[in-house]
Amino acid sequence: MQTYEIAVIHGDGIGPEVCQSATDVIEAALGNGKVLEFTEYPAGAAHFLKTGDGAPKATMDACRKADAILHGAAGLPGVVHPDGTEAGVDIGLGLRVQLDLYANVRPIRLREGIVSPLRGREVGQIDYTIIREDSEGMYASRGAGAVVREEMAVDMLIVTRKGIERVVRAAFELARKTGGAPRDGKKRVTCCDKANVLRSLAFFRRVFDEVGEQYPDVERDYSYVDAMTVHLVERPDFYNVIVAENLFGDIISDLGAVTVGGMGMSPTAELGDHHGFFQAAHGSAPTIAGQGIANPYGTILAGAMMLHWLAERHDDPTLAEAGRRIEEASARALAGGVKTRDIGGKAMTRDVTAAVIGELGSS
Amino acid sequence: MQTYEIAVIHGDGIGPEVCQSATDVIEAALGNGKVLEFTEYPAGAAHFLKTGDGAPKATMDACRKADAILHGAAGLPGVVHPDGTEAGVDIGLGLRVQLDLYANVRPIRLREGIVSPLRGREVGQIDYTIIREDSEGMYASRGAGAVVREEMAVDMLIVTRKGIERVVRAAFELARKTGGAPRDGKKRVTCCDKANVLRSLAFFRRVFDEVGEQYPDVERDYSYVDAMTVHLVERPDFYNVIVAENLFGDIISDLGAVTVGGMGMSPTAELGDHHGFFQAAHGSAPTIAGQGIANPYGTILAGAMMLHWLAERHDDPTLAEAGRRIEEASARALAGGVKTRDIGGKAMTRDVTAAVIGELGSS
Ligand SMILES: CC(C)[C@H](C(=O)O)[C@@H](O)C(=O)O
Ligand SMILES: CC(C)[C@H](C(=O)O)[C@@H](O)C(=O)O
Repeated sequence: MQTYEIAVIHGDGIGPEVCQSATDVIEAALGNGKVLEFTEYPAGAAHFLKTGDGAPKATMDACRKADAILHGAAGLPGVVHPDGTEAGVDIGLGLRVQLDLYANVRPIRLREGIVSPLRGREVGQIDYTIIREDSEGMYASRGAGAVVREEMAVDMLIVTRKGIERVVRAAFELARKTGGAPRDGKKRVTCCDKANVLRSLAFFRRVFDEVGEQYPDVERDYSYVDAMTVHLVERPDFYNVIVAENLFGDIISDLGAVTVGGMGMSPTAELGDHHGFFQAAHGSAPTIAGQGIANPYGTILAGAMMLHWLAERHDDPTLAEAGRRIEEASARALAGGVKTRDIGGKAMTRDVTAAVIGELGSS
Repeated sequence: MQTYEIAVIHGDGIGPEVCQSATDVIEAALGNGKVLEFTEYPAGAAHFLKTGDGAPKATMDACRKADAILHGAAGLPGVVHPDGTEAGVDIGLGLRVQLDLYANVRPIRLREGIVSPLRGREVGQIDYTIIREDSEGMYASRGAGAVVREEMAVDMLIVTRKGIERVVRAAFELARKTGGAPRDGKKRVTCCDKANVLRSLAFFRRVFDEVGEQYPDVERDYSYVDAMTVHLVERPDFYNVIVAENLFGDIISDLGAVTVGGMGMSPTAELGDHHGFFQAAHGSAPTIAGQGIANPYGTILAGAMMLHWLAERHDDPTLAEAGRRIEEASARALAGGVKTRDIGGKAMTRDVTAAVIGELGSS
């Protein structure tokens, strides 16, 4: 039986708690044979405070060698570099660049047990996936922007044909593979840009169209990023797959997440051709760290995404089966009311872990 | 009695209809003496199609000379420049630059008669103002970005100390002048940025802090733009005044607008030290143009903002009084159920105009 090496980065705040929960659930789902080997590596804001390095080379190297990476959360308020940017995010943003993780897959799904803050929206009406370009765009400028004499500052939004093509292709492939939009069952990919104002994003849209033409079975749709926020509130059921430039994807995926229960419910997979990085969309929430009340569902579901991704890469149906069971068990625990504070319940992190593990049995 | 020259730009789609409604209401509010002189000037996408110029110099000059500018809406799908950006927006974006309209004031208020798409949110719980920087930031790059051999493209986010200082000052001044946040009545200015990732926006935050220190009576608050979308859904009652870089302001103000009834309900004022440009936040909605069903409330309320702005500049209480009466009459018409389709009613544009004019009498 093959063993997969998983690099685990606990990070800051609630990171260790949600990671522990996810790895416990994954181990329970896989049973006794040690299919996944979890090894922990340090990184994040606290590690930066201790060592001056939030993304140690040893951790980076281990991530590169691992079969997949599972992340808790990173960042602590006020832990910043001299230029004012956060040190805690060096690990996550660094991995995106160094491992060329270009497609950040963010499923937005309203699950039974969650009350959407959108009036009248029921389970089944919000179910789409945002694919955020994760390797260039506005983030190409990170660390490369300039502040001149504290009088002006500049950053650059850079997109490349190759970068757009590959992420757009990932979006169309995903649309083909999964169900259509809840409203009409249509396979549809929406290009979220600001092509009306910026040349770089008009270029993004052009390349989107070129790639999209190779998928005549999938409908092409367009939205400026500002209007997108309106649409995600007014007609989330219209959407199937949305592809967006890096920063736009950052923004609209947070909005999507809050419509389905918040960051604590939202897993994300950052995928390249050779590496995969999995975590919940939430931050480190230092104010509630160590109290055992963090919501681990996002990280558990990220774990399931990791299993599916490993299964496909290694053609290993056991892993896909485990991923599916974790998803179903999470759904049952949630529908059964096992909910942490952030989603309107009183459960502790460990209650969620235990409930999901318990539900694994009923598959 | 002084007369004020108002340049009116109908623009495209529903632009003429909503402009007509607003000028009718304003004239009714001011009574028989011709205090405001409306003169119409051409611009927009249809004009571009006809003449090759969507923002004629004559219109620009007239706007510069006028005491204020009232705008309908601009843009038509597919009417684009060779670089792919829209031609219809040349007028609006051109005026921002040429008249140095640096503060785009976008009040977000849930009014009686409107059902918020946010579950459980009632009138009085959403009432904040977004001040969008309107002269630099990501929009500094408009027309200046480069597409290189259709292989890569770049745009620049540029902020200056002067540019940040003046818009942040406008935000703190507004917080001082108006009521506090619905939740706790606190005067609070929130800086919406992405200081964790980009140097230019960490600089934005630094300058925000420097200016904010001069307003010790106003609380300083911070949100990354992605998290801001979560907050505007989860706790809109926390906010009082939000200041944001140009593109961020564009995005979050659309989100704010949809939480209070959509773009049709949302007026915006683009203000410089010498010029003011007023319109609704909505687009030209060509699919419903000419049917008489457009929602004119946004433009009517923009008209009221224009009157208040003129009143303050010219120390003319008559205008302020007319502005107040228009707001109150609109509120009564709306609360009385005079609503267009987009906000859940069946009223025609002319019904709204008539109702608001009718309600002016009851002040
Ligand atoms: C923590 C932060 C740097 C990060 C980002 O901006 O990408 C986060 O918001 C995300 O969405 O992954
Ligand atoms: C029409 C468009 C160019 C404009 C903008 O992007 O600023 C609009 O969205 C706005 O908010 O005023």
